[in-house]
Amino acid sequence: MKILLVGATGTLGRAVHSLLGPRHEIVAASRSGAAGPKVDLTDPASIAALYAEVGRVDAVMCAAGGVPFRPVGELTYDDLMAGARDKMLGQVELVRRGVEAEAVADGGSFTLITGILSHEPISAGAVAAMANGAVDAFVRAAATELPRGQRINAVSPTMLTESLSKYDASFPGFEPVPAELAAKAYRKSAEGIQTGRTYRVGW
Amino acid sequence: MKILLVGATGTLGRAVHSLLGPRHEIVAASRSGAAGPKVDLTDPASIAALYAEVGRVDAVMCAAGGVPFRPVGELTYDDLMAGARDKMLGQVELVRRGVEAEAVADGGSFTLITGILSHEPISAGAVAAMANGAVDAFVRAAATELPRGQRINAVSPTMLTESLSKYDASFPGFEPVPAELAAKAYRKSAEGIQTGRTYRVGW
Ligand SMILES: NC(=O)c1ccc[n+]([C@@H]2O[C@H](COP(=O)([O-])OP(=O)(O)OC[C@H]3O[C@@H](n4cnc5c(N)ncnc54)[C@H](OP(=O)(O)O)[C@@H]3O)[C@@H](O)[C@H]2O)c1
Ligand SMILES: NC(=O)c1ccc[n+]([C@@H]2O[C@H](COP(=O)([O-])OP(=O)(O)OC[C@H]3O[C@@H](n4cnc5c(N)ncnc54)[C@H](OP(=O)(O)O)[C@@H]3O)[C@@H](O)[C@H]2O)c1
Repeated sequence: MKILLVGATGTLGRAVHSLLGPRHEIVAASRSGAAGPKVDLTDPASIAALYAEVGRVDAVMCAAGGVPFRPVGELTYDDLMAGARDKMLGQVELVRRGVEAEAVADGGSFTLITGILSHEPISAGAVAAMANGAVDAFVRAAATELPRGQRINAVSPTMLTESLSKYDASFPGFEPVPAELAAKAYRKSAEGIQTGRTYRVGW
Repeated sequence: MKILLVGATGTLGRAVHSLLGPRHEIVAASRSGAAGPKVDLTDPASIAALYAEVGRVDAVMCAAGGVPFRPVGELTYDDLMAGARDKMLGQVELVRRGVEAEAVADGGSFTLITGILSHEPISAGAVAAMANGAVDAFVRAAATELPRGQRINAVSPTMLTESLSKYDASFPGFEPVPAELAAKAYRKSAEGIQTGRTYRVGW
């Protein structure tokens, strides 16, 4: 398969790349463009340009999408909008534009990233919860409408072991999971036949 | 209780008003301002102005929030943004601004509206699913961070009986539920002690 992987240079994206690289041709996109094409999920024009540059693929995978972490009482409307534009609308636009541009082959797949915070709150995580909940629900709905046998799933990990030093204090008592296990969910999504699923990884 | 009800003039809002009007003082806000203060959920400044006009309340209830209905292949980025700004960010902003402005009394509550489409897809319902999923997850997370004993819940009805003539063709085989049952969930949220819940009504 030819796989377009957005966020290929991140903690999760590197694990997806390692697992699937030996089996497939990976186009490694990211914001900086350090390992392949450059794309900014918050900018619809850059998503359109990415598809034009990369040509038709068998799978689109996203391992990118930021959200502001701030307590509800300290959030600004700009924080809400930033979370909405990046992890939520950025990923939805990756699907919407992919469909519109016929960028994905018959029977191809989209795999998006969400996370445990839609169900297990942590301090300052309300915008992350919002974005994750939105994408999980979008995936269930969009699965019914994709053309030409295409499929869509979400991967929803708990904290990754590789991110422990960064996030342990924010996720007290959460058992981390190796990023490789989350990468396996991307493989299940792309090589399998399921659609409309959210794969919980480690929770 | 003094209750600020946004969307008081709609199908659902009227049912909430009927059930709770005899028991509480209702401030009936809506976009047109036909029955009380005017507010536009898509405009943060108008939400701020609403709280300034109404003063402190014991409960904020929302029975408003639109989304575009269009198949994934026909959506535009503007459709995504419109759904995000109205039902999703509009309701989240109602909470965020309510907290910031200390507009709600100690122990008061927020009750937001979502709906079945986050879990049961219908044709053209992907943006609705996204908004509902976002608000359900935001409610679970925000419940942990509200100040002064405040609470927050979501009401998630299936199609309302009162909307049957409008929506029956879009919800084939869905059993409708009287709007009064959804109104009872608003009462449970505001008069009860629960928080972080999504009340499924009729499904
Ligand atoms: N790490 C965890 O424990 C964990 C757990 C559950 C869910 N998640 C989710 O998994 C996703 C990735 O997390 P991560 O920890 O791997 O993040 P990360 O290490 O910070 O990597 C983020 C990746 O996404 C790219 N990226 C960032 N913003 C972008 C944008 N606007 N447009 C396009 N690409 C962008 C980055 O590119 P550059 O490097 O070029 O900037 C990088 O490749 C996030 O949505 C996160 O919420 C993470
Ligand atoms: N009806 C159903 O079967 C059903 C089922 C499940 C969930 N829901 C959800 O329940 C909510 C209300 O549905 P409904 O059928 O009662 O709608 P509706 O009859 O169209 O009423 C909408 C209400 O919200 C107000 N409103 C609309 N846009 C607004 C905005 N931008 N800012 C502030 N107020 C605004 C309207 O005010 P004006 O009249 O002044 O314009 C009206 O009071 C929606 O979020 C819907 O998705 C409905």
